[in-house]
Amino acid sequence: MTRVAVLGAKGRMGSESVRAINAADGLEVVAEIDQGDSLDLITSSGAEVALDFTQPAVALDNVTWCVEHGVHVVVGTSGFDDDRIAAVRSLLGDAPSTGVLIVPNFSIGAVLMMRFAETAAPFFESVEVIEMHHPDKIDAPSGTAVRTAELIASAREAAGSAALPDATTSDPDGARGAKLGGVPVHSVRARGFVASQEVLFGGVGESFTIRHDSHDRASFMPGVVAAVGAVSGRPGVTVGLDAVLGL
Amino acid sequence: MTRVAVLGAKGRMGSESVRAINAADGLEVVAEIDQGDSLDLITSSGAEVALDFTQPAVALDNVTWCVEHGVHVVVGTSGFDDDRIAAVRSLLGDAPSTGVLIVPNFSIGAVLMMRFAETAAPFFESVEVIEMHHPDKIDAPSGTAVRTAELIASAREAAGSAALPDATTSDPDGARGAKLGGVPVHSVRARGFVASQEVLFGGVGESFTIRHDSHDRASFMPGVVAAVGAVSGRPGVTVGLDAVLGL
Amino acid sequence: MTRVAVLGAKGRMGSESVRAINAADGLEVVAEIDQGDSLDLITSSGAEVALDFTQPAVALDNVTWCVEHGVHVVVGTSGFDDDRIAAVRSLLGDAPSTGVLIVPNFSIGAVLMMRFAETAAPFFESVEVIEMHHPDKIDAPSGTAVRTAELIASAREAAGSAALPDATTSDPDGARGAKLGGVPVHSVRARGFVASQEVLFGGVGESFTIRHDSHDRASFMPGVVAAVGAVSGRPGVTVGLDAVLGL
Amino acid sequence: MTRVAVLGAKGRMGSESVRAINAADGLEVVAEIDQGDSLDLITSSGAEVALDFTQPAVALDNVTWCVEHGVHVVVGTSGFDDDRIAAVRSLLGDAPSTGVLIVPNFSIGAVLMMRFAETAAPFFESVEVIEMHHPDKIDAPSGTAVRTAELIASAREAAGSAALPDATTSDPDGARGAKLGGVPVHSVRARGFVASQEVLFGGVGESFTIRHDSHDRASFMPGVVAAVGAVSGRPGVTVGLDAVLGL
Repeated sequence: MTRVAVLGAKGRMGSESVRAINAADGLEVVAEIDQGDSLDLITSSGAEVALDFTQPAVALDNVTWCVEHGVHVVVGTSGFDDDRIAAVRSLLGDAPSTGVLIVPNFSIGAVLMMRFAETAAPFFESVEVIEMHHPDKIDAPSGTAVRTAELIASAREAAGSAALPDATTSDPDGARGAKLGGVPVHSVRARGFVASQEVLFGGVGESFTIRHDSHDRASFMPGVVAAVGAVSGRPGVTVGLDAVLGL
Repeated sequence: MTRVAVLGAKGRMGSESVRAINAADGLEVVAEIDQGDSLDLITSSGAEVALDFTQPAVALDNVTWCVEHGVHVVVGTSGFDDDRIAAVRSLLGDAPSTGVLIVPNFSIGAVLMMRFAETAAPFFESVEVIEMHHPDKIDAPSGTAVRTAELIASAREAAGSAALPDATTSDPDGARGAKLGGVPVHSVRARGFVASQEVLFGGVGESFTIRHDSHDRASFMPGVVAAVGAVSGRPGVTVGLDAVLGL
Repeated sequence: MTRVAVLGAKGRMGSESVRAINAADGLEVVAEIDQGDSLDLITSSGAEVALDFTQPAVALDNVTWCVEHGVHVVVGTSGFDDDRIAAVRSLLGDAPSTGVLIVPNFSIGAVLMMRFAETAAPFFESVEVIEMHHPDKIDAPSGTAVRTAELIASAREAAGSAALPDATTSDPDGARGAKLGGVPVHSVRARGFVASQEVLFGGVGESFTIRHDSHDRASFMPGVVAAVGAVSGRPGVTVGLDAVLGL
Repeated sequence: MTRVAVLGAKGRMGSESVRAINAADGLEVVAEIDQGDSLDLITSSGAEVALDFTQPAVALDNVTWCVEHGVHVVVGTSGFDDDRIAAVRSLLGDAPSTGVLIVPNFSIGAVLMMRFAETAAPFFESVEVIEMHHPDKIDAPSGTAVRTAELIASAREAAGSAALPDATTSDPDGARGAKLGGVPVHSVRARGFVASQEVLFGGVGESFTIRHDSHDRASFMPGVVAAVGAVSGRPGVTVGLDAVLGL
C-alpha cells in the first residue's frame, strides 16, 4: 500500500483526488494538508508520495521540501514552466533517487487525443481543431487546443508535409479561435459543454476524427491515480502523463 | 407523365437532372436545351414544365419566355434576388395560372436543417454553426451557413431570447468564419468534405446537434424531382423548397 | 406569480424542480409535499398548480384530488397509460376548466429530436437510431428510442415510403438493440453517458443527423418550468410537451 | 523513378491505382496487365515492383512468379490467409532479398483507427464499435469492425481490464451487429455511406471517439502509393501497412 499525502486537500481537485486515491487499489491517503498546515505532516504520516494541488506561488517550495525529504511528488499545480523544471532538475542532481512527475493535464483522454493527433498529422492533407467549452471560459483557444495544434504543426513540419490547402479569398469577419503553426483552431463556447475537443483530418474521399468530451472533473481521476502510482518508479523529473501511460 | 424541358442540359446540374427526372415516376425529359438552342423547343416538344439551370445573365429572360408561353418553371439558377422575383410576380399578374418555383437550395437535407435550426433556436441558451467545405471554396462562411445563422437570430429575437452567453475576454487572433446576427459561424476547409454543416445548440446539462453531410451533387436530385413534380400545382411565385415539402 | 405545489418534493426530480421553479420568472413553490404529508397542503398553501413526481401507485389519486379541488396538474410520474388518461378525461367532463398536462418526457431536446425525426422521415431512403446510455440501465432499447422509431415508422408509412434498403444476408449474432416498425435501433451502454440519442438518415450522396446529449437531470428543468407555466392555460387533458412548446 | 507493374490493371482498384501511381513522385507504371496478358510483361517492361489486384484464385501464383523473378510485390488481393503467407515465406527462404508486402486494408485512416483503438483500449472502462456501410453490403459486421473489436479485446485482456460493465437484463430482440471478444459491434446500413466506423470509449465523466469516414475508393490511394514505394526496402514478408507507416 503506497502512502500518499495530498497538498491542497480541501480544493476542488484535491478533495476529489483524496476520494479517488482511497478508492484505488494499492493507494492510501495518509495526510490531507491544506493552507496553514505544516509540511511536517508529510513525513510524520509516513507518506512516500505527495500530490500537489496548491497554488503556483507555493508549489515550487512544496516540491523542494519533498525532494529534500526524499518524498516523491506528483505536481498538478499549474505554472511549472521551463525555469521551474530546471530548478527541480538541479535540486535532484545527477543521480536522483526521488521522482518528480509534473503533469500539465491529468485527462488521459486529452493526452491520448494529443498523441494520436500528432501521429496522424503527416498522413492527411488537411486538419483543423474544434474545441468546445462552457461560455464562462475567458480565453480562447483553450490551452489543450493550442498544444494540440503545436504538436500537429511540428509533426507535419518534421514529415515535410505541404501547407494546408485553403483557397479562401473572402473571409471578412473571423470567428472565435486562432491559427497556430498554420493549423486553424475554432473555439465554440456553449452552455452544456465542460471541455470537449475534436481534431478533424481530411484527405481525398475521407475524413478522420479524434474527439474527447469531458463532462466532469471526475474524468481526471484515472490520470491522478496513474501518476501517483507510478512516480516512485521514475526517479528524476518526468513531464506529462505520456511516459506513465506507456505511450 | 409530366413532360419536362431542361435548360442548361449539358451543365453539371442540368445533365444530372436529366438523368434523375427520367428515372423518377411520372416525369419525362422531352427537351434538352443548351447554349445556341432555340427556346421554341420547349413548346414544340410539348413540355409542360421547364427547369432552368443556365446562367444569371439569361435566366430571367428564360423565365419570362416560359410564363408568356404558359409553361411552368423551376428556377435553379442563382441570382434571383428580390428585384427579379418582383419582376416575375408582376409578369404573372393577379390571377396567375402558371407556376414559377424559385429554389435557392435543392438539398432537402439543407432545407430541413435550416428549418429545424430555426424551430429549435428559442429553446437553447447557446448556439453556434460549424460548416465544413472542400478547401477549393473561395468564400467563407458558406451561403447556407449565413442563411442558417440569420434564421436562428431572427427566431431568437422573435422569442425574446437573451444574447448568447460568452465570457471570452482574450481571443487575439480569430479563425475562419464570422458572427452573424450574434451567432458564431465557424468555417472549416478540409479535403474530404463537399458540403457539411453542423448546428450545435447547448443548454444546462445538454447539447443538441443537427448535421447535414453532402458528399455528392446527386444529393440534390430528390429536391429537383420534388420541385419539378410540384410546380404545376402552385400557380404564382413560390420561393424555396419548404412549401413543396410541406414544411 | 403562479403558486405551485410540488408532490414528491424530496425525490430527485422533485427537489431539482423546486429549485428550478423558484428560480423561474413568475413561478413560486408554496408547498413541498412528500410521503406522509396531507394533500390538504395544496389548497391551504393557495397553490394554483400541482406538479406530481410521486409514484405510479398514487399518482392517479393525486391527480383526481387536484381535479376535484380545481387545481391544475402537471404529471411527471410515469405509468400514465391510455386507461389512466381516459379516467382523467372522464373526470374532467365535457367542459373542463382545470388543466391536466401529462408529460412522458420533460426533455425539450428529446421532444424536438422526436418531432424533427418524424418530419424528416419521409425524405430519406434510410434511417437508423443509435441510443447511448450509462451501463447501469437494465433495459434496451430506451423508451425514447422506441418512441422515436415508432414515430419514424408511422411517418414513413403515412408517406408511402418504401421499406429500408438492406441487403444483409449474413448477420449471425446481433448486437444490443431492436428493430421497431422496421427501423433498426442500436443500444450502446457505456460509462460516461447519461442519455444520448442519434437519429441517422441517409440518402444518395448525403447523410442527415439529429442528436441529443443529456449529461445531467438539470436538462429536464426548462421543460418542467414550461409545463408548470402553461398548464393553467390548457383546460382538459394534454399529453406531451409538444403543444406547450408550440410544435 | 521506381518502375511498377499493375496486375489487374483494368479492375476498379487496379485502374485507380494506375492513375495514383503515375501521379506520385518517384513512381511510374510501366506495365498494365490484366486477364489474358503474360506475366513476362513484368520483366520485359523492367518493372521492379508489382502490385497485385487480381483474384484470390491466381494471386498466389502471381506472387510466386514475382519472387522467382526477383520482383518485389505488393498484394492487395484478398484471401491471403496464414497458409498462403507461410507458403510465401518458405519460397523467400532464410535470406530474402525480395520484398512481399501483403496489405489487407489500404486505407491509412482505417489502419490508424485500429492502431489508436488498440492503444486506447486499456484506458477506458467501456468501449463499443459502430460501423456504417451502404445498404448493399451483404455481411455484418464489416471485416474492419471485426478486426478492430479483436484488437481492442486483446489489448484489454493483456492489460488485465475488467469486463465491460453492462447491466442489461431486457434486450429481447437485438439489432444488426455482434459481440466480438466481449466488445459490442453495431452495424448500420444506410444509403449515403460508403465505409465509416466509430470507436466509442467511455469512462466516468468522459467519452473518447475515433472515427473514420471513407466516401470514395480514392481514399485508398495514399496507402497504395505508400506500399508500392516502400516494398523494395523491406525484404521478406510484411503484413499490413503499419510497418510502412512507421506505426
